[in-house]
Amino acid sequence: MKNKLYYFGAGPARLPPALLQRAEKALYNWEGLGLSILEVSHHHPAFLACLEEAKHNLAELLQIPKDYSILFLGGSARAQFGMIALNFINKEQEAGYWITGHWSLMAYQEAAHLKKAYVIASNEAEAFLTLPPERTWQIKKNSAYLYCTANETLMGLRFQKPSLDPTFPLISDMTSSLLTEPIEVSDYALIFAGAQKNIAPAGLTLVIIKNTLLEQIEEQGLPKALDYREQVNTKPFYATPPVFNCYMAAEMFMWLKEQGGIAKLYEENCKKAAALYTYLDNSVFYETKVEKKARSLVNVCFNLRKPNLEPLFLNQAAERGLLGLKGHAKVGGIRASIYNAMPFEGVLALLEYLEDFEKRYSNKEV
Amino acid sequence: MKNKLYYFGAGPARLPPALLQRAEKALYNWEGLGLSILEVSHHHPAFLACLEEAKHNLAELLQIPKDYSILFLGGSARAQFGMIALNFINKEQEAGYWITGHWSLMAYQEAAHLKKAYVIASNEAEAFLTLPPERTWQIKKNSAYLYCTANETLMGLRFQKPSLDPTFPLISDMTSSLLTEPIEVSDYALIFAGAQKNIAPAGLTLVIIKNTLLEQIEEQGLPKALDYREQVNTKPFYATPPVFNCYMAAEMFMWLKEQGGIAKLYEENCKKAAALYTYLDNSVFYETKVEKKARSLVNVCFNLRKPNLEPLFLNQAAERGLLGLKGHAKVGGIRASIYNAMPFEGVLALLEYLEDFEKRYSNKEV
Repeated sequence: MKNKLYYFGAGPARLPPALLQRAEKALYNWEGLGLSILEVSHHHPAFLACLEEAKHNLAELLQIPKDYSILFLGGSARAQFGMIALNFINKEQEAGYWITGHWSLMAYQEAAHLKKAYVIASNEAEAFLTLPPERTWQIKKNSAYLYCTANETLMGLRFQKPSLDPTFPLISDMTSSLLTEPIEVSDYALIFAGAQKNIAPAGLTLVIIKNTLLEQIEEQGLPKALDYREQVNTKPFYATPPVFNCYMAAEMFMWLKEQGGIAKLYEENCKKAAALYTYLDNSVFYETKVEKKARSLVNVCFNLRKPNLEPLFLNQAAERGLLGLKGHAKVGGIRASIYNAMPFEGVLALLEYLEDFEKRYSNKEV
Repeated sequence: MKNKLYYFGAGPARLPPALLQRAEKALYNWEGLGLSILEVSHHHPAFLACLEEAKHNLAELLQIPKDYSILFLGGSARAQFGMIALNFINKEQEAGYWITGHWSLMAYQEAAHLKKAYVIASNEAEAFLTLPPERTWQIKKNSAYLYCTANETLMGLRFQKPSLDPTFPLISDMTSSLLTEPIEVSDYALIFAGAQKNIAPAGLTLVIIKNTLLEQIEEQGLPKALDYREQVNTKPFYATPPVFNCYMAAEMFMWLKEQGGIAKLYEENCKKAAALYTYLDNSVFYETKVEKKARSLVNVCFNLRKPNLEPLFLNQAAERGLLGLKGHAKVGGIRASIYNAMPFEGVLALLEYLEDFEKRYSNKEV
């Protein structure tokens, strides 16, 4: 008999089985319209109502203040890198970036390519494995905004909100962490997240933006598709949104509420991460390299101390139905992504395998 | 017993029922991977193979020459308006636009907003109902490219390839016509199409670009997400693509081949359009306003000569299962979108209703 499958891919990631059922339910006759959710117009009242409900539920889940707008944009989160720089860095200004991994580095490079940007602090010399200490942070007075990446998926490094006085707008890429832990939205001027980790299938980017941030935009020559003012002010949409992905996001927010909301999921996520890190820390066979206080809640990255066993480890894992454990191509190793949709039983299955593999190979010469 | 439903929406549009079945098939266990197509990584070999096959089939369907690249971009077709202008209009250059309707006008406005653009000819004074005659075209010597919209969905106006000597790169927005009729790809330097008419669910934009066009790009400060060089040269992807939409496009191309290819669909599309226009032309109850030689093959737009009957017409149509017939909010009237996925029997059902409604209301005072 085959094992139950658990998918640990970093994104596009596993969806809750209930979400797949809701996709199926909407496939032929959504809302009794006689149309598939794949066919329905973005102007249809039923879709507009669905999107309004999605916004309402998201606002409730994250306690988003009333003076923020929620955008469902087509395309990749990566497009936000340039969009943020083009919109918000004015003449005489620079934007400050915390470099804590691959994604924040790329966001910084894009901003520096388009406008003026500087590094507040960087952990690149430490191979992205530690958080740059607060005493090394350098924040310039002419900062247009400060930018951080809440969770770096490649090394599995978490950078919770920097504590600093709120002189400058704070922008955060929460692609891999949004909805997995409580946040204080009012701490941020803009939060964005690609959908493919915790929200919906790839192709949608969620943006939560404080309306007053729009007043900062001086740039006149922005492409309209990249102008946040167009995205916020054009009702109902600047361009055709990815309807199906929006529907899936709406269902996801509903599902999150059914699970008990963000606090409950956070509790569960902490439990999942702690179980894995505890096992790994107590093992001499496996090794986690990220400094303890910066460990990701959702991407548990580790290595085998005998790295030439890693291909075998991955193959045997796949045979047991533990999929998607290969680390990112740039860094190798093992990565278990345990977003909201990963149940604790999936973590238990992985733990069982970790132990079993260790037993079988810890004393073998390789 | 309820009538069979036919959806005539302009986009997001009806999909062939076979495509919905293929979506369903991929929903839980795509390619035997144990993963949903909604979860699978864009780096998974099975997905990469799916995309390669999609490109291969599209190239075969449209006979795309080898020196073109095919891009599957996330986001809306409308984002291309700015992207094209930013990439290809260099200093001292302008781009020429044929204005033949709402979409070409918006593309022109975006280009003029970002760079220098001019109008080759416009039918705006004729309410977008006729094609601007060739003798009125003005093409400037410093043109970076010439831009046209192959099919304008609001009024239902078709603008086949302008015949002119190929001094300048020709760019065409084929969002609503791509794959509905044969084209000579080599006539164009760039073709793009939003997916939601004839390709896949909303959220994907297809770009077919001649590789040498990239050499024209001088601009250094492009946002990378808007730089065609990044999109063509970054392998396998610049950013996470909308995986599910790509899968649906792949299945659509397969379906099109199964139907006998573009020539066969074109024949069918001509038959569908001719049946409707012939009926409308012979009626004194209905009225088509677009000039005959410019009528869209895929968006048949018409009015009732007693316009106050239109709401009733739409309501009774919906009761009979004929959905999505309301014209665009900007222009009103009736619009029957009969893309590839609309079978001839759907057109017959509409014809029957047109005749029936006419009989019942042509002599009534309203």
